[in-house]
Amino acid sequence: MPYDLVIHNGTLVTVNERFDIIPNGLLCIKADKIKRLEPLDPHQSLPAATETIDAGGGLVLPGLVNSHTHLPMTLFRGLADDRPLDIWLNKHIFPAENAHINPENVRWGVLLACAEMMLAGTTACCDGYFLEDQVAEALHTSGMRAVLAQGVVDFPAPGVPDPKDNISVPRAFVSKWLNRSPLITPSVFCHSAYTCSGETLKKAKALSTETGLCFQIHAAETQNEYRQIQHDHSTTPIAYLDRLGLLNENTLLVHCVWLDDADIELIASRKACISHNPESNAKLAAGIAPVSRLLKAGIVLGLGTDGCASNNNLDLFHEMDIAAKIHKVETNDPTSMDAKTVIEMATIGSARAIGLDHQIGSLEVGKQADVIIIDNRKAHQTPMYHPASHIVYSAKSTDVRDVIVAGRVLVRDRQILSLDVKEIMSEVRKIAEQIKMSR
Amino acid sequence: MPYDLVIHNGTLVTVNERFDIIPNGLLCIKADKIKRLEPLDPHQSLPAATETIDAGGGLVLPGLVNSHTHLPMTLFRGLADDRPLDIWLNKHIFPAENAHINPENVRWGVLLACAEMMLAGTTACCDGYFLEDQVAEALHTSGMRAVLAQGVVDFPAPGVPDPKDNISVPRAFVSKWLNRSPLITPSVFCHSAYTCSGETLKKAKALSTETGLCFQIHAAETQNEYRQIQHDHSTTPIAYLDRLGLLNENTLLVHCVWLDDADIELIASRKACISHNPESNAKLAAGIAPVSRLLKAGIVLGLGTDGCASNNNLDLFHEMDIAAKIHKVETNDPTSMDAKTVIEMATIGSARAIGLDHQIGSLEVGKQADVIIIDNRKAHQTPMYHPASHIVYSAKSTDVRDVIVAGRVLVRDRQILSLDVKEIMSEVRKIAEQIKMSR
Repeated sequence: MPYDLVIHNGTLVTVNERFDIIPNGLLCIKADKIKRLEPLDPHQSLPAATETIDAGGGLVLPGLVNSHTHLPMTLFRGLADDRPLDIWLNKHIFPAENAHINPENVRWGVLLACAEMMLAGTTACCDGYFLEDQVAEALHTSGMRAVLAQGVVDFPAPGVPDPKDNISVPRAFVSKWLNRSPLITPSVFCHSAYTCSGETLKKAKALSTETGLCFQIHAAETQNEYRQIQHDHSTTPIAYLDRLGLLNENTLLVHCVWLDDADIELIASRKACISHNPESNAKLAAGIAPVSRLLKAGIVLGLGTDGCASNNNLDLFHEMDIAAKIHKVETNDPTSMDAKTVIEMATIGSARAIGLDHQIGSLEVGKQADVIIIDNRKAHQTPMYHPASHIVYSAKSTDVRDVIVAGRVLVRDRQILSLDVKEIMSEVRKIAEQIKMSR
Repeated sequence: MPYDLVIHNGTLVTVNERFDIIPNGLLCIKADKIKRLEPLDPHQSLPAATETIDAGGGLVLPGLVNSHTHLPMTLFRGLADDRPLDIWLNKHIFPAENAHINPENVRWGVLLACAEMMLAGTTACCDGYFLEDQVAEALHTSGMRAVLAQGVVDFPAPGVPDPKDNISVPRAFVSKWLNRSPLITPSVFCHSAYTCSGETLKKAKALSTETGLCFQIHAAETQNEYRQIQHDHSTTPIAYLDRLGLLNENTLLVHCVWLDDADIELIASRKACISHNPESNAKLAAGIAPVSRLLKAGIVLGLGTDGCASNNNLDLFHEMDIAAKIHKVETNDPTSMDAKTVIEMATIGSARAIGLDHQIGSLEVGKQADVIIIDNRKAHQTPMYHPASHIVYSAKSTDVRDVIVAGRVLVRDRQILSLDVKEIMSEVRKIAEQIKMSR
């Protein structure tokens, strides 16, 4: 029986437990799974396969995993930058969402996000937003993998005009998408402890627990949030969530910038995971998460970009570079956040954080074939001494040549096969014209 | 008389005094200069020209200016990352330089650097290294513009085995390159106050003063340097340089991370300029320069990448994004280092810092035609609300489509016309093999 797809003439950066790097590797795929992965014997001919991809001497990696996104916010990319956080949110982002987040616009925003992510080597993401059913439908047409959640807040939101439906709508979303597609896993997303009551948080967590799904929540992002939770509940944001029984191994805490030592111990002991979003945290001046201490405490960390209104891209290569550098300077230690650690955070770390590490996040036999090929015949990637260093400090998202998800080639030679990018860009430009007109 | 080159159908981001942005602009070039720059009247036909470039609705900018590089260090890109600074320098970089920096290797390293810079929209740079005559010869073949300086240290260096020649070699370099090419301006570069004696520093400054050239020096980069100068000279690095008479409007201080208030006042009062290298400073954990305070003091700041051993690239688009974000989070102010300020730093600011602002750094009639065109028909650049925001937070160096220096098209549709990139990459790979073998 021939393989469906064989990749050769590349260096396999496996991101397995030993971080094995296999020069001149062979990767064989059957259906949606990796079936074989080994050094290619120079005397050996290639195994029979329906399709063979020559990696051209490039790097072959597990697809990157973005552990925190708000996909439809591509529509607001660069709408309002360099503003104080409250003005940015209350005068720009919330009004734009109220006026322009509708099913049709969400569809185009998500398709644009998928195009951007795939061209940047991201094969899976974890999203939380409104009208998430439309998010799921659009994302599904791209062929990407995702953990998706309908957002929960205690005020009217797009698609949920009456907050008393803020649990029933996510419940319907979970019911619809549970076991519907092997590529889409539903999840539950509460926006935060300051936009949801304790009752709402507990109900949402119960919904995720019933079904064993990931529970996402923004937590300890800003100093204002920290102060408000201290004021309202006389404790830290993390301790408050724990008091409500929200922290366990299925909990994904997003941001975690404002933590004290007890918070870190609490997160570690409850085995909750964290999505680390350094660019968004920097751009909004939220702060720098204490990543070295979190890693030392044994907490699972994934890397995320956040939405395009606060970054302004969905580019995990860029995020890896900044993550590596910002923590070195913050801790005054050039050995912290080394390249290997950062790559793990953007692959297997994110996969663990969103509950998909049994399927994705590394190149290993039996795992899903989510694979990217990086073309390193570029001036800015020449010469190459160490593949891991190159991936973090030299490669760019635009060096990603091919993208495969569940064995299906979605990007070949930088052309997306599953989406019409020109049409998507054209439609989003029309929506942006409406957004401009309404301001 | 027809123009030599006319660019139309683009948004001109002039970076002039008023930061004028001209949608559907017209830019006319004759020989090496910008002759006309205005909105294109929709009823007007294009002026006659030998060559007309349709910018495709993209952004037309002044070429970016990299105010601090060590070009041949592309050879050491990624050689040793994530190491303590002293081990990185003494165990990896210095030995590699001693063993492998020779005229032939410098030539290939510089050609690679030029290819990388041009493809990233950088049209001019300010360099300091050893064997700088070879740097200049190689750079000159690329068609780029540069300020170049032979490095001065008080120990044996490549090309200057006897430190007693450490002023005569730069003097010969200056003599050779002064008024030799309109694109190359010689300069003088002392490595630092801890590798040069006071006498050496004064002699080197005198050489630059005789000829009115830019005097470059690494200054106040690390805490160790700060402590050492305090120990040896009982004052700060900046006050020590001032005591030697080294600070004036032709002085380019590189890094300036470790400054006290008096240092900032001193730099401002002497009108010395600063090259700000946030990525290198972060990666080596040197620290974060107090940029907001420097700008407030009225000091001219240019942006620079530093060499490829500590970044690991020569990409000013990446540098702009990090510069914007790192200072927001450092100062806890999301309005600091707004997109306009960052673009100015990478163009007119750098041009001022290296003494070329009468020629380059903005699109203005009478200035040199150093122009880049950014293709924004990309998913990650869609939609676009504000050009300045887009340049800093969304565009990538790989979106640069065309590059023009002194009216000459050096890059067309991402193909370099003046250099053979494949040959350069192949030669540098061979050198890298030798470097690997010798370790």
